[in-house]
Amino acid sequence: MALPVDADRLRADIEGNAAFGAIDDGDPDTHGRTNRTGTEANRLARDRLVERFEDAGLDVTVDAVGNLVGTWTPESAEPDAAPVASGSHLDSVPEGGIFDGPLGVYAALESVRAMQDAGIEPDRPVLVVSFTEEEGGTFGNGMLGSAVATGTTDLEEALALTNDGGETLGDALSRIGYDGEGTIDPAGWDGFYELHVEQDTTLEDRGADLGVVTTITGITHCHATVEGEANHAGATAMDERTDALAAASEFVLDVERAANDVVASSSESAVGTVGSLSVAPNATNVVPGRVEAGIDVRDVEYESMETIVAAARESLARVERERGVETTFERPFDVLPTPMSDRLRDAAHAAADGAGRTAIDLHSGAAHDAMRVARVTDASLLFAPSRDGISHNPREWTDWADCAAATEVLAGAIARAAGAE
Amino acid sequence: MALPVDADRLRADIEGNAAFGAIDDGDPDTHGRTNRTGTEANRLARDRLVERFEDAGLDVTVDAVGNLVGTWTPESAEPDAAPVASGSHLDSVPEGGIFDGPLGVYAALESVRAMQDAGIEPDRPVLVVSFTEEEGGTFGNGMLGSAVATGTTDLEEALALTNDGGETLGDALSRIGYDGEGTIDPAGWDGFYELHVEQDTTLEDRGADLGVVTTITGITHCHATVEGEANHAGATAMDERTDALAAASEFVLDVERAANDVVASSSESAVGTVGSLSVAPNATNVVPGRVEAGIDVRDVEYESMETIVAAARESLARVERERGVETTFERPFDVLPTPMSDRLRDAAHAAADGAGRTAIDLHSGAAHDAMRVARVTDASLLFAPSRDGISHNPREWTDWADCAAATEVLAGAIARAAGAE
Repeated sequence: MALPVDADRLRADIEGNAAFGAIDDGDPDTHGRTNRTGTEANRLARDRLVERFEDAGLDVTVDAVGNLVGTWTPESAEPDAAPVASGSHLDSVPEGGIFDGPLGVYAALESVRAMQDAGIEPDRPVLVVSFTEEEGGTFGNGMLGSAVATGTTDLEEALALTNDGGETLGDALSRIGYDGEGTIDPAGWDGFYELHVEQDTTLEDRGADLGVVTTITGITHCHATVEGEANHAGATAMDERTDALAAASEFVLDVERAANDVVASSSESAVGTVGSLSVAPNATNVVPGRVEAGIDVRDVEYESMETIVAAARESLARVERERGVETTFERPFDVLPTPMSDRLRDAAHAAADGAGRTAIDLHSGAAHDAMRVARVTDASLLFAPSRDGISHNPREWTDWADCAAATEVLAGAIARAAGAE
Repeated sequence: MALPVDADRLRADIEGNAAFGAIDDGDPDTHGRTNRTGTEANRLARDRLVERFEDAGLDVTVDAVGNLVGTWTPESAEPDAAPVASGSHLDSVPEGGIFDGPLGVYAALESVRAMQDAGIEPDRPVLVVSFTEEEGGTFGNGMLGSAVATGTTDLEEALALTNDGGETLGDALSRIGYDGEGTIDPAGWDGFYELHVEQDTTLEDRGADLGVVTTITGITHCHATVEGEANHAGATAMDERTDALAAASEFVLDVERAANDVVASSSESAVGTVGSLSVAPNATNVVPGRVEAGIDVRDVEYESMETIVAAARESLARVERERGVETTFERPFDVLPTPMSDRLRDAAHAAADGAGRTAIDLHSGAAHDAMRVARVTDASLLFAPSRDGISHNPREWTDWADCAAATEVLAGAIARAAGAE
């Protein structure tokens, strides 16, 4: 069964959403946006989604952490049956792309409309979901709305998180009019599909229309500090300094090397990144006194992650011995690898076959709301191709035809999961 | 001849000055201040110096770039004779120490008061000078007041420099009431003495009271950029990334290694520092896309500096080849090594002998206003001991007895240079 989707309607939705927080750098090949939770751009993106839900006849609910749900209960469905849900998020990283998140939300909505247009009669209601603060960085570590919905994060704790301006998430949601009641409960869902851009080049390299994720990698975030001694860059002889940046530079290269070693020896999917580095006092003429670093480690195998983290700790111990700096190391965020639902993966492959699209299995190195949902019910993560694998960047791009093809498969998978055939 | 100075009066002056912009971190062993040009703290420090000039009967002038001068024209002096000048600066780096700059200004004032108290009758007027924006970082690269006074920097260009808030130096000086007329002219001075804290441990290690600088090292400031590709830290495989921070980390270590190599092979006084490093987008979960670095290179031999700068350029070329990043390298600031005046050095040694103090020759790795003044007249830089060599840091310290001992030598040297014996 092929379930035709309206490619132009989908494109108009994604382009309409992209206008909120749009970055125009004058380059026609970039399409950036900054849509941080609780901003005016975020309010406008939410308002537009609510309008589109209403246009499609969906019932709209907002929960206490701002998660937005549109519910389609067709006459064919038992209203109390566990629904099939699908969605993603509307927020972005600063200077991010226009597909990361919105594709999954609007593809889910387009799937519902495609089912409506085709006269599909599912046994279960279908929910279109937009989770709050998936990216993190504005309030907390990310995947916040789905963490609250699945009981990983306490609601009150989430609402008390503050942004750079000191405003709580609760106050920010209230200010933009998206502080609802209760929390949605994915444990009551029959299953959840999330379509997302791949953010890597596997699909592009292999010419596939769709990726069906087998496992979402585990993720560890670590925070390291290196304390040396700030001193005059001209008056402090080379053998008298304790340069925190030189020590931290060894650490950055050690983390990179440890990840490369794991890739070469045991697990190709492992990655280790020092993504942030802040130097104090950070003046050209002062020997750096202190460095703070943020480290990101991921793999489908938790053991590989442990190997890289151990190498990072050993690197700090070594620069302490060899350079006389003092260091600290914390690991505030640690999530195990998450396998996806075989049942939903099979439905996705069947939908791809039915639509004449090529689908391949792969892993996800990025965390997504589907990872949280998988804690409490069957979840499946599907990927559309990303040009050159670029994301979190205005140069992120997925061709409109690729968006439509992936959405066609998503619609078929949802229809199957909802018992439409 | 020993010229007694009033150690308590000197201490009261330095402590009084230290109150403006004082940092109280609760640690009794630290004495920090932030006194940036054009701030309220800077205005108060200037106001206090003017009062102390007037208390000592000095004529006060302020020039167009805010340089402050107190002139003592004793009855013994020919008013038109080329004066002997001495001084330093009142501004500090952010979170700097209380001696770096103010010691030289108030020691010069104390020298005048000591001559007055002792009934010394010099042939020449004596000037006490406080130069504007020696540290740099607020407006431009530093030593700005002395650069304008000696014709190295154009007055209008200096006044148009802006701080982080976008305010020009001219507007900032006008706002705090220190926008005078004309510019002082060190070329008309018979000579200039600057007493400063050593910011290194040579005096402490050798148990000397005073350092007499032979040469101020040359200084180069360079600015490098490393452009990689910002990308998702989880979804971008290790062999698919162009990590600007990993490349920059190699650069930091290459600069350090090049300086160490020069120290080991040819010139012990050489130093090379990557003092600042700024990463974008600087998020834990994003592969760094861009790094900017500030590099400081100094030595008494210009050839050694060239060797380190060449190694820095080669390092960037190497990471371009090996890592696929793009780099740029600029060298916006370059000053040759500056020998100090033999005549004034001899007078300082004679004054030390007369006062029963030990003085040793050494070089200065730090630039000071004396470097600018040496372009146009005889200049001499003297050092007082710095505990553990720490400066540009609230832990900077010079014992009050060491301040007084060094000031006693300064007073004797000024008296000799001014023809008092």
